[in-house]
Amino acid sequence: MTRRASRVVSGSRVTGRLHLGNYVGALENWVRLQSEYRCFFFVADWHGLTTSYEDTTEFRSYVEEMYLDFLAVGLDPAQVVLFVQSDVKEHAELHLLLSMVTPLAWLERVPTYKEQLQQIAGREIATYGFLGYPVLQSADVLMYRGELVPIGQDQLPHLELCREVARRFNHLYGPVLPEPQALLTEVPWLPGIDGRKMSKSYENEIRLGSSPAEIEERVRRMVTDPARVHKSDPGHPEVCVAYRFHTLFNAAAREETETECTRAGIGCVECKQRLAKAIIRYLAPVHERREQYAAQPGLMQDIRQDGARRARREAAAVLESIREAMRV
Amino acid sequence: MTRRASRVVSGSRVTGRLHLGNYVGALENWVRLQSEYRCFFFVADWHGLTTSYEDTTEFRSYVEEMYLDFLAVGLDPAQVVLFVQSDVKEHAELHLLLSMVTPLAWLERVPTYKEQLQQIAGREIATYGFLGYPVLQSADVLMYRGELVPIGQDQLPHLELCREVARRFNHLYGPVLPEPQALLTEVPWLPGIDGRKMSKSYENEIRLGSSPAEIEERVRRMVTDPARVHKSDPGHPEVCVAYRFHTLFNAAAREETETECTRAGIGCVECKQRLAKAIIRYLAPVHERREQYAAQPGLMQDIRQDGARRARREAAAVLESIREAMRV
Repeated sequence: MTRRASRVVSGSRVTGRLHLGNYVGALENWVRLQSEYRCFFFVADWHGLTTSYEDTTEFRSYVEEMYLDFLAVGLDPAQVVLFVQSDVKEHAELHLLLSMVTPLAWLERVPTYKEQLQQIAGREIATYGFLGYPVLQSADVLMYRGELVPIGQDQLPHLELCREVARRFNHLYGPVLPEPQALLTEVPWLPGIDGRKMSKSYENEIRLGSSPAEIEERVRRMVTDPARVHKSDPGHPEVCVAYRFHTLFNAAAREETETECTRAGIGCVECKQRLAKAIIRYLAPVHERREQYAAQPGLMQDIRQDGARRARREAAAVLESIREAMRV
Repeated sequence: MTRRASRVVSGSRVTGRLHLGNYVGALENWVRLQSEYRCFFFVADWHGLTTSYEDTTEFRSYVEEMYLDFLAVGLDPAQVVLFVQSDVKEHAELHLLLSMVTPLAWLERVPTYKEQLQQIAGREIATYGFLGYPVLQSADVLMYRGELVPIGQDQLPHLELCREVARRFNHLYGPVLPEPQALLTEVPWLPGIDGRKMSKSYENEIRLGSSPAEIEERVRRMVTDPARVHKSDPGHPEVCVAYRFHTLFNAAAREETETECTRAGIGCVECKQRLAKAIIRYLAPVHERREQYAAQPGLMQDIRQDGARRARREAAAVLESIREAMRV
């Protein structure tokens, strides 16, 4: 007896080049999921517009680079439906249809909405589209009858809204849409090199596509234990950003690193050199695949088109059943 | 030297069967415009969902009947691009793109928004889609680089929002979208048979597709001068609903009707019989065309598909230039 694999849907919002935070926070997990579930993963370019619409100079290159990164990290386009959101216009239609049944009050109470309004100062993001972000997200998931959505705790309110939208739809028009469940993922915390959240806007990120020299440069600037002034001072790994990176990218040597640091057996400079080497080694297969794909733009285009075609086939069928149920 | 005809765009929201109020308020004007301008007229079915999403039992038949009414009133599908909004998916994509650049505050201050919220009690219309109604309207018009929009005074705020959206788009991404102008139309006031606004929800309407017997029945129930109790009492045409209808549908006999009423030379019963005859005569060509088209469902389908194809060709080209400008 074969068990039908559950459908997993997830997207990555286009805000710039992908970095190590995105990698350990999402993509590594996607790679683990791809053989176990029926996965739909996508470059969420329309979502990127909610906050980036004022400057789209590099937007298309971000989209292409992200798709390349998807392949580089080891997502297999034969196994996963890998696509760019705006290549599948059905998302826009479903977003419009769901907008009719989504009470405004549900959107206004999404906690991330007001938070982001406050955080992203200086840009006019209080737009209709920004408020409707969770409606578009719901459309993205329900479009493929998504059953599982790999997320962290912080995104639970968005998923809850998606489930409420599905419930309301089913209540109004009959049982068509499954209510997706969270596939809660323990995401390791990875700060930027300055200790704040890793983010392009802080310029504290290490990009997935960075060259070895760039990685070395960024690691050199990492914040370490401020109490360790001289090499002979014992360090406190628990407050050191570089050590945090060691635990993730140099895990085999974690204990040794900790011991040498606390006993002042190794200086920060050498410790960082080891870390840079470890990160470069860790990312070597990613870089290798990245270069192989980047060297074949024709193949890249074929893969993207094929992904879009497969996504559209699924999306069109689900949308048809949604239209039937709504009698529109 | 030939002058390029300006582009006129307008739609009719699906709320039920079209009635005489819609006819004299919009469709008659469209028929006048069709030979003078390059016209895009459409059945606004997605707009209908903003207020009708809770009960879509008859929605599809309303859409088909409205398209039939468009043809029945004399819109020429060879001259006008005549289509159903949801047949042209580009509207949904442009709606999504424009949602990113439309400040929430612009929508919240549209006067009809709060009015309607209060008027339509008992139904949950405070949805995301209802708030975004003017964004979808803007997409509808800008989709065809609409230059003129035939509207009444009450719709000016919606057009102003559409102009603001176009301006903001052009400011952000370059001069792509013309700012549409109002083609202000003197719309004759036509009440329902009870003297209130003619509306399906009041059941006081005379439908465009009503049979002669139905028209006679509705006219019989029309509210007349309440001070005229006996046939010998002189009437006051200025407060009589039937007289209002006479001025529009029996204009040639307007003076005679007024005189006979104020001199008590004719009773209300006879006056209404004349009116019913006049309305039936007035609508005769509409009914005739309606029956001809209704008898040929295959032809109807071809016309609708052809309209959709022509609309899509225009919409796809404009959307492409919009995507280029936005660099998405």
